[in-house]
Amino acid sequence: MKCFGVLEPGKKVGWLEKPAPSAGAFDAIVRPIAFSPCTSDVHNAFHVGEPPFMLGRVLGHEAVGVVESVGDSVLDFKPGDRVVIPAVTPPWRSVNAQGQFPQHAGGINRSFQFAFHIDGVFAELFRVPDADLNMALMPPEVTIEQAVMACDMMSTGFHAAELAEIAFGDTVAISGAGPVGLMATAGAALRGAGRIIAIDGREKSFELALQYGATDIVNYKDGDIVRRVRELSGQSGVDRVIIAGGDAESFKSAVRMVKPGGVVANVNFFTGEEFLPLPVLAWGSGLAHKRIVGGLCPGGRLRMEKLLRLITCGRIDPGRLITHRLYSLETAEEAFWLMVNKPPNLIKPIVFIGS
Amino acid sequence: MKCFGVLEPGKKVGWLEKPAPSAGAFDAIVRPIAFSPCTSDVHNAFHVGEPPFMLGRVLGHEAVGVVESVGDSVLDFKPGDRVVIPAVTPPWRSVNAQGQFPQHAGGINRSFQFAFHIDGVFAELFRVPDADLNMALMPPEVTIEQAVMACDMMSTGFHAAELAEIAFGDTVAISGAGPVGLMATAGAALRGAGRIIAIDGREKSFELALQYGATDIVNYKDGDIVRRVRELSGQSGVDRVIIAGGDAESFKSAVRMVKPGGVVANVNFFTGEEFLPLPVLAWGSGLAHKRIVGGLCPGGRLRMEKLLRLITCGRIDPGRLITHRLYSLETAEEAFWLMVNKPPNLIKPIVFIGS
Amino acid sequence: MKCFGVLEPGKKVGWLEKPAPSAGAFDAIVRPIAFSPCTSDVHNAFHVGEPPFMLGRVLGHEAVGVVESVGDSVLDFKPGDRVVIPAVTPPWRSVNAQGQFPQHAGGINRSFQFAFHIDGVFAELFRVPDADLNMALMPPEVTIEQAVMACDMMSTGFHAAELAEIAFGDTVAISGAGPVGLMATAGAALRGAGRIIAIDGREKSFELALQYGATDIVNYKDGDIVRRVRELSGQSGVDRVIIAGGDAESFKSAVRMVKPGGVVANVNFFTGEEFLPLPVLAWGSGLAHKRIVGGLCPGGRLRMEKLLRLITCGRIDPGRLITHRLYSLETAEEAFWLMVNKPPNLIKPIVFIGS
Amino acid sequence: MKCFGVLEPGKKVGWLEKPAPSAGAFDAIVRPIAFSPCTSDVHNAFHVGEPPFMLGRVLGHEAVGVVESVGDSVLDFKPGDRVVIPAVTPPWRSVNAQGQFPQHAGGINRSFQFAFHIDGVFAELFRVPDADLNMALMPPEVTIEQAVMACDMMSTGFHAAELAEIAFGDTVAISGAGPVGLMATAGAALRGAGRIIAIDGREKSFELALQYGATDIVNYKDGDIVRRVRELSGQSGVDRVIIAGGDAESFKSAVRMVKPGGVVANVNFFTGEEFLPLPVLAWGSGLAHKRIVGGLCPGGRLRMEKLLRLITCGRIDPGRLITHRLYSLETAEEAFWLMVNKPPNLIKPIVFIGS
Repeated sequence: MKCFGVLEPGKKVGWLEKPAPSAGAFDAIVRPIAFSPCTSDVHNAFHVGEPPFMLGRVLGHEAVGVVESVGDSVLDFKPGDRVVIPAVTPPWRSVNAQGQFPQHAGGINRSFQFAFHIDGVFAELFRVPDADLNMALMPPEVTIEQAVMACDMMSTGFHAAELAEIAFGDTVAISGAGPVGLMATAGAALRGAGRIIAIDGREKSFELALQYGATDIVNYKDGDIVRRVRELSGQSGVDRVIIAGGDAESFKSAVRMVKPGGVVANVNFFTGEEFLPLPVLAWGSGLAHKRIVGGLCPGGRLRMEKLLRLITCGRIDPGRLITHRLYSLETAEEAFWLMVNKPPNLIKPIVFIGS
Repeated sequence: MKCFGVLEPGKKVGWLEKPAPSAGAFDAIVRPIAFSPCTSDVHNAFHVGEPPFMLGRVLGHEAVGVVESVGDSVLDFKPGDRVVIPAVTPPWRSVNAQGQFPQHAGGINRSFQFAFHIDGVFAELFRVPDADLNMALMPPEVTIEQAVMACDMMSTGFHAAELAEIAFGDTVAISGAGPVGLMATAGAALRGAGRIIAIDGREKSFELALQYGATDIVNYKDGDIVRRVRELSGQSGVDRVIIAGGDAESFKSAVRMVKPGGVVANVNFFTGEEFLPLPVLAWGSGLAHKRIVGGLCPGGRLRMEKLLRLITCGRIDPGRLITHRLYSLETAEEAFWLMVNKPPNLIKPIVFIGS
Repeated sequence: MKCFGVLEPGKKVGWLEKPAPSAGAFDAIVRPIAFSPCTSDVHNAFHVGEPPFMLGRVLGHEAVGVVESVGDSVLDFKPGDRVVIPAVTPPWRSVNAQGQFPQHAGGINRSFQFAFHIDGVFAELFRVPDADLNMALMPPEVTIEQAVMACDMMSTGFHAAELAEIAFGDTVAISGAGPVGLMATAGAALRGAGRIIAIDGREKSFELALQYGATDIVNYKDGDIVRRVRELSGQSGVDRVIIAGGDAESFKSAVRMVKPGGVVANVNFFTGEEFLPLPVLAWGSGLAHKRIVGGLCPGGRLRMEKLLRLITCGRIDPGRLITHRLYSLETAEEAFWLMVNKPPNLIKPIVFIGS
Repeated sequence: MKCFGVLEPGKKVGWLEKPAPSAGAFDAIVRPIAFSPCTSDVHNAFHVGEPPFMLGRVLGHEAVGVVESVGDSVLDFKPGDRVVIPAVTPPWRSVNAQGQFPQHAGGINRSFQFAFHIDGVFAELFRVPDADLNMALMPPEVTIEQAVMACDMMSTGFHAAELAEIAFGDTVAISGAGPVGLMATAGAALRGAGRIIAIDGREKSFELALQYGATDIVNYKDGDIVRRVRELSGQSGVDRVIIAGGDAESFKSAVRMVKPGGVVANVNFFTGEEFLPLPVLAWGSGLAHKRIVGGLCPGGRLRMEKLLRLITCGRIDPGRLITHRLYSLETAEEAFWLMVNKPPNLIKPIVFIGS
């Protein structure tokens, strides 16, 4: 079957011909209806070093599809079901999944399997491990665009809002208004944030941030963001900061712009630095009760069902993230390169394949 | 000065003439611009027994006003300031206020002072104890109607949503869609609830519940609410139940309609029963992890500032609760009797006095 | 094989001859080394009504044993391993186990399987479902007596301390000083409680309560326990109450003796009443922030490993609970009747079978 | 009156003659019975730069004493009362103290007032601001040595255990076994930790760590502590790390030795670095759910009463921290220099003055 993946680990992506996957007893084989490439796919393709297991690895981890077949032990799904597959698929039958964070059962971020530990979704067919536990029926009220955006963007952005422990009326600064930051914005509003300050540099991002609930905009191109966020929020800083993009400098700023007693919640995947610089004075020399937290979004079926319910109840429309639409499996390549090159008006592309 | 209060404890309300209050060192004297009567005023007037200290007690605990004078030690307010006064005003300078629930410093519900432990707001002037800690500046963007509704209705309803520990996508049933239940509805939506099921019997309540975020309506006049809520939510029950009105029967139903692992969050003031019946089987014989919580809303200035920020940020408009508008101090009486008699289309009345 | 169980549901227990169990792919078959009967076995035998599925049900849910055989898919255990089997064994491969309380996956208390939904441990052999996830290796430093007491008594008693959300220095009253109450006492001390008030009527219980960390004793035979607990703790009440035994009266007293803002944490299995009476005034008419919580202890392997670590680290010796020792499978019957008749000096019996 | 403080900010300490303090309406004047110097005093004397307000600042913030006089508005204390004064004394009458962390009301760490913002306790008399809220009666069962150690060492060490959110059976590594680290050790044991690994280099520290509940010792002089802690705890790391001493390297190691999903809880006061290096890979590139928290211990009366109750209940004896005893006010100087020079067998000195 045809699929899009890694031709040379760390160096080259392209089209592959691989045998169709087969389902283990608890697995499902799914034919994608639509999928979306993500910055993580770019990262997996080019920036994780050159582990040999990435050779031939199919990319992609955001998809909705139709069940093609299921293993003997799958109880809740059957061929023909339309399903939403979360990006994070923990090994639920694992003692490590009994703790608070099944995401890391088996090792840090280990449950982020698609496109790294197992083949991803940019293919005619893909395998979902432990299907009863790792995919959700697609409710008829949810559009394909919404569902694809729920797989990772919404789950990750909303997890930022969860990690931030927002209380009613809190002021929240959100660093980065790409698709994850925009979902964090919507998520913060849906956790009861008062003022939400979106920090970015792109017009398209600002436009959507305001639609998703931001009350203020800070353009980092206009200079010192810490100073401006503090001015907007009162000099003691904001109650919470969400990092949904950026680099070591964003991290430093986050700690500086948050109040004592506040939270810096990260969902950005930091690369390129060995250390993030935690500013000692702003951190109260260690005593300011500024919690620094960050984590991979929860995975699995229950999580996805809850997110989809927010969509069916009209609380959120993640579909507005989509700025570019492509049609046919073959356009996966073009979509992928959109995420590499990020034209100014891009938030997220989607590729429609079938129905 | 003229004020409306208790003529005979437990029996009779009416107009009183009392000396104008004077401010202690940390207090403020406030002239009301607008206020609203509440079911609690009715309760204080007629149902708390006949404690002698209720004789001559001025009623009312939801008001915005203009500062008339302040004590010598008040730092942050001055005559002429427009202020919002929360219904709950804890004794912050108290070792008991150092715990998690300053509301109960000095005894259960002791911080619910106005109209019970101290004179209330249905008067030409009233005293706010510890003004720097117990009132908030009224932001110019907030309307008088919104601000009066924030004092108790919004604070209490939103506290229900806080107590319920709602997670993204949770299904929440709300028992009672009076003003507190409606604010609980809005609060639940702003904590990320998915489906919200409003339970009531009044058309006006249903209309507003849908506006404030309810997705489903259950009319208790149509029979067994537990069965219908379970049908709507799937047979295992809802994730959370908020009780914002009702009686022993509502309590019983709440425990029955919530899932194992769920929360029953109460902000109703139960009267008339010595015991609430906790259904043993539905409570898993004690082991179902159905948490039963309930509490008086947090008080004080910081709380009120946060609630007002939700209004200025456009997250919520509590002003829509108001169905009846009256003008002049003298109409306090008529407004009070509206709360006693509760005509079908009443949610909340407001009395405008000056500006 | 020989086993002890239910001859007539609700009426009669005795010896049965059943075929040896066989292991499914993920299961283990275990030969018990020692086990202990529990009040829940008595309950399952005589008080759950007469469901037909209890006919022939083998009793017992507290055991350590030696692995006899394992299914093909079991990875971490092999024949000959000495293992501790928790009383609660959730169906981990279940979407409902993805929530916060796997104990109730499939229904309230559904994970309390042994001796009710599946055959228990009073037999030559018994089956452990999902062995990799539901049993723990027995560390060599742990004695058999300690390990058997960890299966349910310690897990349940410690869960009471978890549910109670004890903070450093809190005063905790514990209603009932049977084996679970004694473990709750030890657990409360290990969560940092200050004063611990044990409420019971038996000398043996008081003696052990003081050893396990109680600082004060209240004998319910001496009259009004609420008054005496309040006197000991200061008139506003205790910070937390744990219910580890008793009836509707104990529940009522618990709500009355806890402070506003406090917690009543239940691990008692209430029977015989349709409703527990929640005292309205003591509950602040619904507003006192007295949380009422209760739940089945967490199950599974990780939980058991953590509890065993507390024993190997010398934090707790649950073995002191054992007051009666019997030897041979046949004495299961005598041990069972000890739990029915509860002689005054009984805390827990243990039956040693082999090694 | 005679007192020991800062002669030249940042450079020189010594004896001062200052007028006796006088009590504001809410204050108390206390005559110390005993006090103890702390590393923070050394820090305040020599390392906070040279702010002019440190000129003449009396040092010391750990003391018990006798009330000499009280202001007119003090209700709960009278001359002659023996009192314990916490090191952290928040401005309770402050809107910022209404949030979760009164410690930082008015600015980061602002409630750490003694010896920095106001005169400390190394004097014949000292002033306690807001006495009803900031000091506790000394229970007769508590020794002077225990009480002085509760003021800061126990409160800070126990706060580390609080911040670490320890669950039953968790493995906890504690970096630094000075007086705060030793109290964190005792605190971790009293929160239910299983294995506790003490990391230090001093024999005296190891000896006490084992007494206070450590199960394992790692000497940093023997090389790579991360590797050895991981070996002791299993390769995935420890559940929690407490930092109670050290530098940037300790911080780095802490993040490396904690499991995904774990907590790094800091109570160390970091100095000398502008940034702490947060290791990106060990932090899961931002996604490992390793929470990094740190904070000044809670202050005020309720906190101190709770800590003292742990002592009266026999849960902890902080008095064992004291290795050096001196007698008379004049020995404050010698005691201070002990903290500067830290001889190998020093944990904490105490100075007895009167009774």
